[in-house]
Amino acid sequence: MSDIKLQILGSGSAMPTKTRNQVSQVLSLHNKSFMIDCGEATQVQMVRCSVSLSRMNHIFISHLHGDHCFGLVGLISTLGMKSRTSDLYIHTHAALEPLLQPLLKFFCRDLPFKVFFEPYTQSSSEILFEDRGIIVSSFPLKHSLPSSGFLFKEKVKERHAIPEKLKFYNVPIKEIAAIKNGADFITSEGVVVPNAQLTTHPSPSFSYAYCSDTVYDEKIIPYIEGVNLLYHEATFLHEHLSKAKATMHTTALQAATIAAKAKVDKLLIGHFSARYTDLNPLLKEAQTVFPNTCLVNDGAIFNL
Amino acid sequence: MSDIKLQILGSGSAMPTKTRNQVSQVLSLHNKSFMIDCGEATQVQMVRCSVSLSRMNHIFISHLHGDHCFGLVGLISTLGMKSRTSDLYIHTHAALEPLLQPLLKFFCRDLPFKVFFEPYTQSSSEILFEDRGIIVSSFPLKHSLPSSGFLFKEKVKERHAIPEKLKFYNVPIKEIAAIKNGADFITSEGVVVPNAQLTTHPSPSFSYAYCSDTVYDEKIIPYIEGVNLLYHEATFLHEHLSKAKATMHTTALQAATIAAKAKVDKLLIGHFSARYTDLNPLLKEAQTVFPNTCLVNDGAIFNL
Repeated sequence: MSDIKLQILGSGSAMPTKTRNQVSQVLSLHNKSFMIDCGEATQVQMVRCSVSLSRMNHIFISHLHGDHCFGLVGLISTLGMKSRTSDLYIHTHAALEPLLQPLLKFFCRDLPFKVFFEPYTQSSSEILFEDRGIIVSSFPLKHSLPSSGFLFKEKVKERHAIPEKLKFYNVPIKEIAAIKNGADFITSEGVVVPNAQLTTHPSPSFSYAYCSDTVYDEKIIPYIEGVNLLYHEATFLHEHLSKAKATMHTTALQAATIAAKAKVDKLLIGHFSARYTDLNPLLKEAQTVFPNTCLVNDGAIFNL
Repeated sequence: MSDIKLQILGSGSAMPTKTRNQVSQVLSLHNKSFMIDCGEATQVQMVRCSVSLSRMNHIFISHLHGDHCFGLVGLISTLGMKSRTSDLYIHTHAALEPLLQPLLKFFCRDLPFKVFFEPYTQSSSEILFEDRGIIVSSFPLKHSLPSSGFLFKEKVKERHAIPEKLKFYNVPIKEIAAIKNGADFITSEGVVVPNAQLTTHPSPSFSYAYCSDTVYDEKIIPYIEGVNLLYHEATFLHEHLSKAKATMHTTALQAATIAAKAKVDKLLIGHFSARYTDLNPLLKEAQTVFPNTCLVNDGAIFNL
């Protein structure tokens, strides 16, 4: 899993601070990059964090609050100036396209690539992207307007063939792909060699779940259960629970509770309210429930 | 003129760099702040440069390229969250309102203030704002689409009354305002005391001209002649003149030539192409023609 990387471009919430931009992340795996949310100044952060734009063809927008999408038009405009040619797919609530298309037509004439808005249903889970190795799906969050989380999952990988066993049983090369996918081998004498004698378990598949913005909602647990890495918003300290409820956000304690109940490996918390300059109390609060928690900071890179 | 301040929020051009944001400036004088252009991340820069938003009621947009206006919706959204109540006036080409109003309606519901788009003609000079002390006018620049410069001018101030002369001539208090505005005084015996005997010259009035984006164009000189401070874009070195011409921008040498011909006191250059990491060659080039030139950097403050 060494080629998987999560870069935090913005870790703040609606109001930017001296050190935190509005939300955006880039997940890189299998030689592809996926952007998650695109708050204002995302393109600035991409330059400052040296994020390559060339392999980023999909942007997933969790919901239509400005701090999650105000950076789109500027980013697209700059991608155009950089002579990008690959088409760009924006997975979003359907309401975004009629708002942004007039701006793209006016400000981004003659783009050397196409922009496709790919609306998805936010009330249920949906597969948004799939290729041979990865599947990206959405699942519903509960916020003041339709909001979705995203699950990025490597598909189950091929089993590792044991070379000396293949040689011992004289397995022909053309059979090896099927065996790596779990097939038994039948010798020329008709003897069945069980797959377990020819292969070992595949390398583990990586999974990342992104949950922002949302109230504390245990209904998301089936979607995120057992992921390697969970990002969950933690806008407030639990002492500000009433504010969290009023704005339909989560406290650090609640985010950690979700992580614990979903039995994830590691929790990242972010989307902090601008009211907090010292974030250690948020971290400590979460760690009382889920020790393997990290704060995210703008520019942070998690190699996974 | 000690209460006049120019703050540079963004000094770059279309593509942000590691150190330069898209264009925005705030000019503060007479207890008011005026924003000039509003590229992406202007609201972030306002936080980072500790610019007060409360007295900023007018934004002047020079032209409708994204790097001069992509920050507007985010800024307005954040002003709303900060419970601002003063109305906001955006002086701009008329094409901007129909592009941004749908976004404001969607993303900035229930703003506690009104946003007025104030279209102005970009083909001629026009007064955009005027109060007792200040006058702001536009003048046409020459770019790839309609573009305007802005002239901020303190009106001629009151003359300084000479207290001992007022006493000597027994000038009644009710006459003093007229005398400060240049009136002669007529004594009770009908003798005319010329104003020059009662007052000294007023403090100098400050003037600032902003010119971005534009080709080299001597037609702007009558508008900017003799200003205290001129900001002129200098996107390219003169060795890249062909690029400047192709994109309808100015070189540092050309900006300095305009400053010299317009006999301004001081020149600021900015809007640098992202291709330059070392900007000293641009500064040196300009100084060969106009020594009193400064580069602008993000966050710079000029107390005037």
